[in-house]
Amino acid sequence: MSEISSLGEFGLIDRLTDGLKPVNDSTLRAVGDDAAVMHYHDDEDTLVTTDLLLENVHFDLTYVPLKHLGYKSAVVNFSDIYAMNGTPRQITVSLGVSSRFTVEHIEQLYSGIRLACELYGVDIVGGDTSASHQGLVISITCLGTAPRDKIVYRDGARPTDLICVSGDLGAAYMGLQLLEREKVASAGQPDFEPQFAGKEYLIERQLKPEARRDIIAALAAAGIKPTAMMDVSDGLSSELMHICKQSKTGCRVYEDRIPIDYQTAVMAEELNMNLVTAALNGGEDYELLFTVPLSAHEEIKKIEGVKVIGYVTEPDLGCAMITRDGTEIPLRAQGWNPLAEPDTEKDLHSPIK
Amino acid sequence: MSEISSLGEFGLIDRLTDGLKPVNDSTLRAVGDDAAVMHYHDDEDTLVTTDLLLENVHFDLTYVPLKHLGYKSAVVNFSDIYAMNGTPRQITVSLGVSSRFTVEHIEQLYSGIRLACELYGVDIVGGDTSASHQGLVISITCLGTAPRDKIVYRDGARPTDLICVSGDLGAAYMGLQLLEREKVASAGQPDFEPQFAGKEYLIERQLKPEARRDIIAALAAAGIKPTAMMDVSDGLSSELMHICKQSKTGCRVYEDRIPIDYQTAVMAEELNMNLVTAALNGGEDYELLFTVPLSAHEEIKKIEGVKVIGYVTEPDLGCAMITRDGTEIPLRAQGWNPLAEPDTEKDLHSPIK
Repeated sequence: MSEISSLGEFGLIDRLTDGLKPVNDSTLRAVGDDAAVMHYHDDEDTLVTTDLLLENVHFDLTYVPLKHLGYKSAVVNFSDIYAMNGTPRQITVSLGVSSRFTVEHIEQLYSGIRLACELYGVDIVGGDTSASHQGLVISITCLGTAPRDKIVYRDGARPTDLICVSGDLGAAYMGLQLLEREKVASAGQPDFEPQFAGKEYLIERQLKPEARRDIIAALAAAGIKPTAMMDVSDGLSSELMHICKQSKTGCRVYEDRIPIDYQTAVMAEELNMNLVTAALNGGEDYELLFTVPLSAHEEIKKIEGVKVIGYVTEPDLGCAMITRDGTEIPLRAQGWNPLAEPDTEKDLHSPIK
Repeated sequence: MSEISSLGEFGLIDRLTDGLKPVNDSTLRAVGDDAAVMHYHDDEDTLVTTDLLLENVHFDLTYVPLKHLGYKSAVVNFSDIYAMNGTPRQITVSLGVSSRFTVEHIEQLYSGIRLACELYGVDIVGGDTSASHQGLVISITCLGTAPRDKIVYRDGARPTDLICVSGDLGAAYMGLQLLEREKVASAGQPDFEPQFAGKEYLIERQLKPEARRDIIAALAAAGIKPTAMMDVSDGLSSELMHICKQSKTGCRVYEDRIPIDYQTAVMAEELNMNLVTAALNGGEDYELLFTVPLSAHEEIKKIEGVKVIGYVTEPDLGCAMITRDGTEIPLRAQGWNPLAEPDTEKDLHSPIK
């Protein structure tokens, strides 16, 4: 194992970025100068999003492998660009690293970032690397592009629009509960074998989420442009309320339409947790939540992996869920509060928002 | 004083970004969606740079006021864009905040960032805000623009080019030494009054550096495009070696040509430090180091605040300083190693690189 200080900042960066080849025409110069240089064309707009991830706030290295962490750190940024109906193109990666990390550790982390970039066609163009007194710090900024008339904001939902969500919800949150449970059970037992059999999907959703590029492609192929869209990082309930607030509308979603995987349901049962609460408020699913005009109903139904869960209303009706027995329950944003002290956090929470 | 958790992430962001009005045509949508949206024109390239600043690695809140810290955090990014001969346009600001900070603290920090943006004509377009277990974390990414034929890289220096530097060197480093000395002297004395009389320039250079936009403008007005350029953040010696390595050249600089302020010299004397070592290796000056063709000599001499300190050579001559008595001393990159543990750091170091 090699100490990072033996390489120095520039030696480490050389090693991490060795062999990187830009794949996007817009990337002119990547790592190695005061700034990276891109060229974006007049017929497209440029998108930028950023995420800051801090050890023991957003991730726990007891059970998160560094390569997975790198992969996820990149993908959550791509997800934000897709949620604008754009294409991620470049990222910068800043790392703060405390002395307990070796060069090999950072290479693992970076290999996950590089793998995500390779799979999603994104170039690493810059960054900053520093010592940290405070565990691992990861700050990634992602640039993307989209033709101006294709960009989808959060504020375009209109009454009677259909509310759609991709994939299923609550699994990443249940994966986190499972990992936390096994962490507690393993304390002080070096030979402990965590019990994940039959729950692999939950673990994968928590540790290795994907951004829904496939849904963006399917919508484009079907000729559907959503009226509003965002990714589900803090929880469905909170995200729905964002769209409704910014669009100045209300909404109704049906409890029995919320897509939930079988493993999620089994895990909720085991933990004696309310399944719908977990699906509404558990974060980190990185699914797409979007609205489409009622007229797109037939086309939307044909897209695999997308479910219509409700509809947009006039604002005075507020935001509510209609339960299986027909009762209306107001939605509340119970998602993770990233500014609360995690130790004292009572709500459901998602470590990476 | 208000606890940050009482506002929540979105409440805090609303408060910090209240009243922000974009001033750049390229900024289409700022804070409030999954990503910000910009539009860059076909006749210009886009630049991106990023800096990660960690408490007690890059700054010490014992003597750095939060507003100054915010100002400097933004300006160091602008400096990187000017060092490409570009214009900074947008930044994203990510903050990790531990529970000892109140809303008012973060407002002070942000007011410094906003002031810098206002003075330099830069828009705040996004960010991320999170709890931190680990003191204050600041990650800023800056986007800029430049016509393609104006961009200056580090690799364009050619033998016989003149080496130029703006302003003076070593003052920010001496300011840091002064602040550290007064911190030690004040320990345990609540009524301690730090002694900064006659050394205000050093304090200002350390706490409130400026990016040399004026030099970029003067060069443009004189019709001079540097062949290579970067900003002096890690120390002149280290930066010269970057330019020579990337340009595949050597260099000679003259000890007696290195610009040093009177206060810097007095402070070095007081601390019994070698003045030229401090000027060569002390970081954070944020001056511009650049090379110009020999034919620009007459024009360069007319630009106020720019000094010719040496010339570029063939690579086999290496990088050296010629002392007052005519001796050649090889340059060494003794700048701050941002990956060494600060507590055990023996070299001169600059807290913000």
